[in-house]
Amino acid sequence: MTLKVAMLGTSGHTGEVLGGIPRIEDCELVAVCPAEPEDDLSGVQGNPVWTGNTKVYGTALEVLEKAQPDVVGVCMRLPKNAETTRLALERGIHVVSEKPLATELEDLYELRETANRSLARLTAMFAFRFFPDFYAAHKAVQEGRIGEVVLALGQKSYRWGQRPDFYRKRKTYGGTIPWIAIHAIDFLRWSSGQEFVLVQGLQGNLVRKDYPGCEDCGGLVFGMANGGQAVLTFDYLRPAGAPTHGDDRMRLVGSEGILEVRTADGFTQIVTNEVGPVSLGLEEPAQLFVDFVRELREGVPHRIPQEDAFRVTEIALKARQACDEGRTVSLRPLE
Amino acid sequence: MTLKVAMLGTSGHTGEVLGGIPRIEDCELVAVCPAEPEDDLSGVQGNPVWTGNTKVYGTALEVLEKAQPDVVGVCMRLPKNAETTRLALERGIHVVSEKPLATELEDLYELRETANRSLARLTAMFAFRFFPDFYAAHKAVQEGRIGEVVLALGQKSYRWGQRPDFYRKRKTYGGTIPWIAIHAIDFLRWSSGQEFVLVQGLQGNLVRKDYPGCEDCGGLVFGMANGGQAVLTFDYLRPAGAPTHGDDRMRLVGSEGILEVRTADGFTQIVTNEVGPVSLGLEEPAQLFVDFVRELREGVPHRIPQEDAFRVTEIALKARQACDEGRTVSLRPLE
Repeated sequence: MTLKVAMLGTSGHTGEVLGGIPRIEDCELVAVCPAEPEDDLSGVQGNPVWTGNTKVYGTALEVLEKAQPDVVGVCMRLPKNAETTRLALERGIHVVSEKPLATELEDLYELRETANRSLARLTAMFAFRFFPDFYAAHKAVQEGRIGEVVLALGQKSYRWGQRPDFYRKRKTYGGTIPWIAIHAIDFLRWSSGQEFVLVQGLQGNLVRKDYPGCEDCGGLVFGMANGGQAVLTFDYLRPAGAPTHGDDRMRLVGSEGILEVRTADGFTQIVTNEVGPVSLGLEEPAQLFVDFVRELREGVPHRIPQEDAFRVTEIALKARQACDEGRTVSLRPLE
Repeated sequence: MTLKVAMLGTSGHTGEVLGGIPRIEDCELVAVCPAEPEDDLSGVQGNPVWTGNTKVYGTALEVLEKAQPDVVGVCMRLPKNAETTRLALERGIHVVSEKPLATELEDLYELRETANRSLARLTAMFAFRFFPDFYAAHKAVQEGRIGEVVLALGQKSYRWGQRPDFYRKRKTYGGTIPWIAIHAIDFLRWSSGQEFVLVQGLQGNLVRKDYPGCEDCGGLVFGMANGGQAVLTFDYLRPAGAPTHGDDRMRLVGSEGILEVRTADGFTQIVTNEVGPVSLGLEEPAQLFVDFVRELREGVPHRIPQEDAFRVTEIALKARQACDEGRTVSLRPLE
């Protein structure tokens, strides 16, 4: 049976969904709507998965009700994603949401209640879990190659370039922690295998001052459940002269060894008490949407459990809160 | 006139002082005492600066009163350094102290009062200021090559190896922040050119559990005076299979560029909006004691102002306090 896919908004990483469609049997892009009326759809219309059957609707609700997709990608403006995802889940339609799932905790918890009542499955665009280097790091830890992780360091650094107007305000953007640092929160927590229990941090808007709602640098420290620490920095200050857009890194310090990953120069390394520095062996890259659909169709667990999509968004929003309030914020459940 | 040098204790980086003596005209090691009665002096006695005139005394006070040195190195057990330095300063004898200057804030402030009343000059063994790579980074920032630093990342990572018994207790060791992380506090603050105004952090003893007083991993976030962040991690978990003892790093993110230094592989790099990645040009290494004596004899300012020796120790002890108390600690002066 053909899997009917729709894109609700085209404001985020639509490629995470669209890029998977040609690799999935009997899978078709049936409908698209813009995130906002003024948005240009040419990016999606120029994609090879756009067919004569792909329809354009004015709103997400119209797509859901008229095109009746089986699964949707949600790439609205960030503060609208939670509500849009909720509309889909209420109709039993599976969702691949741009991260964060929500830009406010209340919206997140409301969405979680909807998700718990729905038979549909929700995932988030935590793309790093599908990068061969970060996946190899995760696997190396799972296999015990560096012992128990007690210190983890993450870095997100991007060029600024041109940014849309909605980055200018917290209200329309959400903040750089839920938008960018969330990737490092996810890959540190997932790769280390350690839950985060508290967070402290600082951030600022110091260089891109015409975008006051967009923090351009910051640092976070998370307490891990085993008493260890996860530390991350993020910035939008990678210079124009740098060879790549991003410079993302991870360093995991374990009781028996240390491993490192750097995207900008393709560096991976593991060193243990027994073995000197060697590269991590990499597998072929997996694809998020392909992996998600395999769970939907065949029950093979997707690499991003639904509870992780909620938990990592929650951690990001509480990290933002810790920065806003200048204090340690607990990440333990209230109950 | 011959400059008479003495070593009070041989428990720390005595080489910072002894290594300079042969490079200084009319300069002689006249006396040494052990940090504790049981200490072996063979390391110093085997050093080329040991002469027929070098005398061994039982205590620091004896050295100060009988040998009457012009300048002393202070390398007692860490909690005793403050008191020993005070004895020297009270006698107008210049001091090169192992860091931290003190392991408790009360001792530090008391020492500062003594130092302010003394005509003698005090410096601390902030060795990184004399490494060509860190010095080049400092100079590049001073010259404005990366604009204003808004995010700074430091790393201290050491192999564990064998550690003396005094590392086992906070009371005899002081803690890994004042002993190890203090280097990164100094090089981040000095190289960035930004004062630190607050600190948050977490640390733990998770692997070297037979040394419960010795934190083996941790992460700190400092607020900088311009609203930026300085973040550092430290660990004693560099694996035996690693090619070097230490893996110390710095990354400075400025409004106009980014620079990086890594000691383990001799990597330096600067990239700006105008210029793609290039190495930092390095000068010949300077030597701490040579540089200090040049100030004493010729008035050429030493690379470590006395106020920095106090301030960086104060920041380290307040960072330790922030970890102990799980809260943000102000680094602003009380007055």
